[in-house]
This record gives sequence, structure tokens and C-alpha cells, in this order.
Amino acid sequence: MILTVTLNAALDVTYTVGALVPHTTHRVQDVAARAGGKGINVARVLSALGHEVMATGLAGGATGAAIRADLAASGLPHELCAVGADSRRTVTVTDGRDATGFHEPGSQVSAREWDEFRRSYTRLVRAADVVVCSGSLPAGLPSDAYAVLVGIAAAYGVRTVVDSDGAPLRAALGARPDVVKPNAAELLATTDVADSVVAADALRAGGAGAVVATLGAEGLLALTEEGAWRVRPPDRLDGNPTGAGDACAAGLAAGLAEGTPWPERLREAAALSVAAVAVPVAGAFDEPTYRRVRAALPVEVLPCR
Amino acid sequence: MILTVTLNAALDVTYTVGALVPHTTHRVQDVAARAGGKGINVARVLSALGHEVMATGLAGGATGAAIRADLAASGLPHELCAVGADSRRTVTVTDGRDATGFHEPGSQVSAREWDEFRRSYTRLVRAADVVVCSGSLPAGLPSDAYAVLVGIAAAYGVRTVVDSDGAPLRAALGARPDVVKPNAAELLATTDVADSVVAADALRAGGAGAVVATLGAEGLLALTEEGAWRVRPPDRLDGNPTGAGDACAAGLAAGLAEGTPWPERLREAAALSVAAVAVPVAGAFDEPTYRRVRAALPVEVLPCR
Repeated sequence: MILTVTLNAALDVTYTVGALVPHTTHRVQDVAARAGGKGINVARVLSALGHEVMATGLAGGATGAAIRADLAASGLPHELCAVGADSRRTVTVTDGRDATGFHEPGSQVSAREWDEFRRSYTRLVRAADVVVCSGSLPAGLPSDAYAVLVGIAAAYGVRTVVDSDGAPLRAALGARPDVVKPNAAELLATTDVADSVVAADALRAGGAGAVVATLGAEGLLALTEEGAWRVRPPDRLDGNPTGAGDACAAGLAAGLAEGTPWPERLREAAALSVAAVAVPVAGAFDEPTYRRVRAALPVEVLPCR
Repeated sequence: MILTVTLNAALDVTYTVGALVPHTTHRVQDVAARAGGKGINVARVLSALGHEVMATGLAGGATGAAIRADLAASGLPHELCAVGADSRRTVTVTDGRDATGFHEPGSQVSAREWDEFRRSYTRLVRAADVVVCSGSLPAGLPSDAYAVLVGIAAAYGVRTVVDSDGAPLRAALGARPDVVKPNAAELLATTDVADSVVAADALRAGGAGAVVATLGAEGLLALTEEGAWRVRPPDRLDGNPTGAGDACAAGLAAGLAEGTPWPERLREAAALSVAAVAVPVAGAFDEPTYRRVRAALPVEVLPCR
């Protein structure tokens, strides 16, 4: 089972309007709501690929109830710990041209709620092959929250993928996660180094077993104990990049669970990323695109560093 | 007691962002939520003026629960009938320059829920001096819903104010409401007549006891059984016009309950409108502005028609 952690779960709401005109009032034509947060997106992709998954994290209030109801309706196994404060929402306004997002800040988590989550997580982690920790931390959690979770997983011999940035990612390195998956902006924000290869190397030096950086149109860059690779997407991608990183993390977690060789694992992760761009919502991917890209994607070996 | 009816109650959510840039993602700095819908705004203003009020209407789901919780926190007496579908939200994004609104459509109300509401309303109306019916109708309700509610009130000798437009307002006229309060756009949408005086006259001819039209910077126009008046605001108004119409409706309902002479009633309603523009949220007014404007506002007698 692959356990995904979403400490800042959200209800992702999409409003469809005719055209977004700032400083006017819009009648919303359609409202769609879906449980979100990066770890939940990862679990959805893994579940669609046929993997056994469990989504854990924190959710509270009426919005937390709506998140749980949507996960139940999706048939996605989940055990979200209850917190007192209402979970956050994201509102995305689509007007046929493009999307405009409004992301609420997460609500405050208490020390007692974090204690309860760690107990619940420790129980779930024993049944897991891989843990994926994704996204930002809500207010009230210590910046070493992911380090703690990676450490608990390691104590049970469970491998880990961390997809975060800044202080939580830097702290997590000390617990030696198997894979970290920053994007270009997160690499820069975490290391203050502009060159992606040098920055990824710094994360490896800091304690990550492998660094897989998602560089948008530049594809994936992977620095691992077994070698370094780059996978470039086959063509210009049009679509919705939200969720491409989560699909990549799902592919990396699946490969880690199955012990797939790195080049194959990266091809899988990159194909999922490309296929995620082809669909409008995060946590989903286009199956034909996935199969077509996975069959054709070249993996380029980089010189040893 | 003044009973206000909000069949399309909402949770009014305000997001504060740095600057609204279409087709980008915004981190919301502050989230505020408040029970809304025009009848609830009217009840808030009346309550602040010291009147005994009761807010009724329809609310459902998690958003309905949030609406009720906010009314309870405000100490506003309310009896909202439960419906199965989730209540709507409005999201207003403020960026320091101006507000951008996104209004969800109302959810569907069933025939059984409308039956239950009428029963509950009939019980509440017996204790009321005046009923105020405000706003649009949610999907599923007949377009003569306000006509039905005005008819029930009339059967118990209870006076009525209707603040709506289009088909629900046209249908309500047949039940002879004491006052209708359209704004300029609603007057035009309801009558297809561009001249405000001619349009207001048509509503009187259709069955309204009095028509008080709120014409923005042009102030109030009132055509009544006792005469015709115009009240122009004292100076250029800067602020938030949302809620000015509701504050006016509150003033008209209070005057109807107390039998205040029309000129005084209109001065009161106009002063509340002006004072509502001076505050950023609907359902509130600036007390010093209210007192200052009420003391100074001239009421102009129009020639008899």
C-alpha cells in the first residue's frame, strides 16, 4: 500500500464564468467541487493506475466534511484526522481562456492535533510500502513535520517521497528521504541556487537519496545513487499544468514500491506528468496520452557527477 | 416583529488579495465569511435600529449550517427552513482597489420543501407586523412565490414590502403588496420602460400600494397613495453600494410597522441607504452618517399624477 500525506487538504472549487472582468460581479454558471491537496491528487493517480493506496492528512469543519464526502464518493481509501478549524478551499475561476486561482491559507493546527496525527500515521505507516508527503504545511505545524514523518517511516523500513519546498523540505533532508521531488521554483526557493543540476546536487548532499526535479517544459532531471538522467517531454504541452507534479510523484512512488529500475521509473513518472497536463483537473491523467508517451519517451543519461 | 424572507440565503465570503491579476494564482491573505442574502441584510439593519426581527428563508447543507452559525453568532433571531441542497456562496475578492464578485447560482428547492416553508412562514407571519420579501428565487420555486407569501400575510392583516424584480415582482403585484422597492435596473427589467416615473407608475397600476425606487446617486423616488416624493442624497457617495437597497428596505419596513408619515419614512430610508454605502459590508450602516444625513435630508414633493 502507498500512503499519501496531505497535511493541508483542501476543497478545490471550480467556478465557470463567461469572462473574468476584474472589479465587476459575475454570475457563476457552474460550480464543481473536489477534494484536493497534493497528496490526495497523488493518491487519485496511484489508484487509477491500480495501486492500493491510503490518503491520510488533516481535515476539519464543514469543508473537511465535504472533502471526506468527495473522497468517499470517489471510492478513494482515506483516513483524515479531524482538526478543529475549518479546512481551506481553493477557488479556481475558468472563463474559457484560462484559470484564475484564489488559494485560502490553511487553518491553524494545534500541538495536540499534530500529536494525534503522528499516532494515526504511525499505525498506517506499518502497512505501507511507500509514503508520499506532499505540499505545504498548515500554520501551527513545526517546520520539521516532514522530517518527523520520514523518520517514523524509516524506523519501520518504509521508503519515502517528499514533495515540498523551503524550510519543510530542507528539514526533511536530515531524515534522509529516498526521493525528493521539487519543481524549478521549489528548487530555487529551497537552495537559492539558480542552476537546476547544482541545486539538485545540493539536496542530494543534504541527505536526499535521489532528487527528481520537474522542470516544466524542460522535463525531468534525476540525480540518484545509481546515476543521473534527464527526460524531456516529446512536444510542446498545452493544457493545465496543475497536478503534473503530483502525477510525477505518483509515478516515482509506484516505481519505488515496485523497485523499477530508475530509467523506467522516470519514463513512467514523466509520461504521467505529460498525461496530467492533458486533463483539466489535478489528480487525473489522460490514459491514451500516458500510454503513447510512455512507449516513446527517450531517457537521456547524464554524465556522472 | 418584522419578518424578513430570504429564499436564496447565501454565505458571503470575502477574500483579500494583493492585486487581482486575471489568469494567475493568488494567495488569499484573509478570508471572512458572513451570512448573507438580501432579507438577512434587511434583518441586520432593523436589528441594529432596535427593532424586533425574525429572519426566515431556506438554507441547506454545510453552507446552510455556516449561515445559521453566523446568524447565531450575530445574535440575529432566525428560523431558516432546511433544504436538502447546499446553500450558495458568494465570493468577493477585494484587492484594495475594488471588489470582484462571483455569485454561485442557488441550489434547487423541491416542491415538498416549498410546502414546508409556507407552513413555517404562515406560523411566523401571525406574530409579525410587517413582512419583507427580498431577492431572487432559487431554482425550483414557482415565479409567484412572493405573490403567495404576500397573500398569506394579507390574510393575517400583515403588511408587506417586496424587493425583487422580473417575473417574481410582476407576479407579486397581483397580491397587492404594500410597498415594492425596485432599483433602476430592476424597474427597467420588470416593466421594459426606461423612464423611472412612468415605470414606477406602471407597478402601482399593477397592484403595488406604493413604489419606492432606489436610483443610486439620484436617490429615492416614491409614488404612494398619499403623494409622490423624491429624496436626493446630499453629496456624491463613495463606498460600497452593495446593501444600500437592503438598508432602504429596512427603513421602509420600519416606517410601515410604525405608521410613520411617508416623507419622514422616506428620509429615514434614504439616510439608511447613504449610511450603508459608507461601510464595506452589506447589512450594516455607519451610525454617525445615518444621523447626520437624516437630520439634513430634504424631501421634495412631486406634482400629483
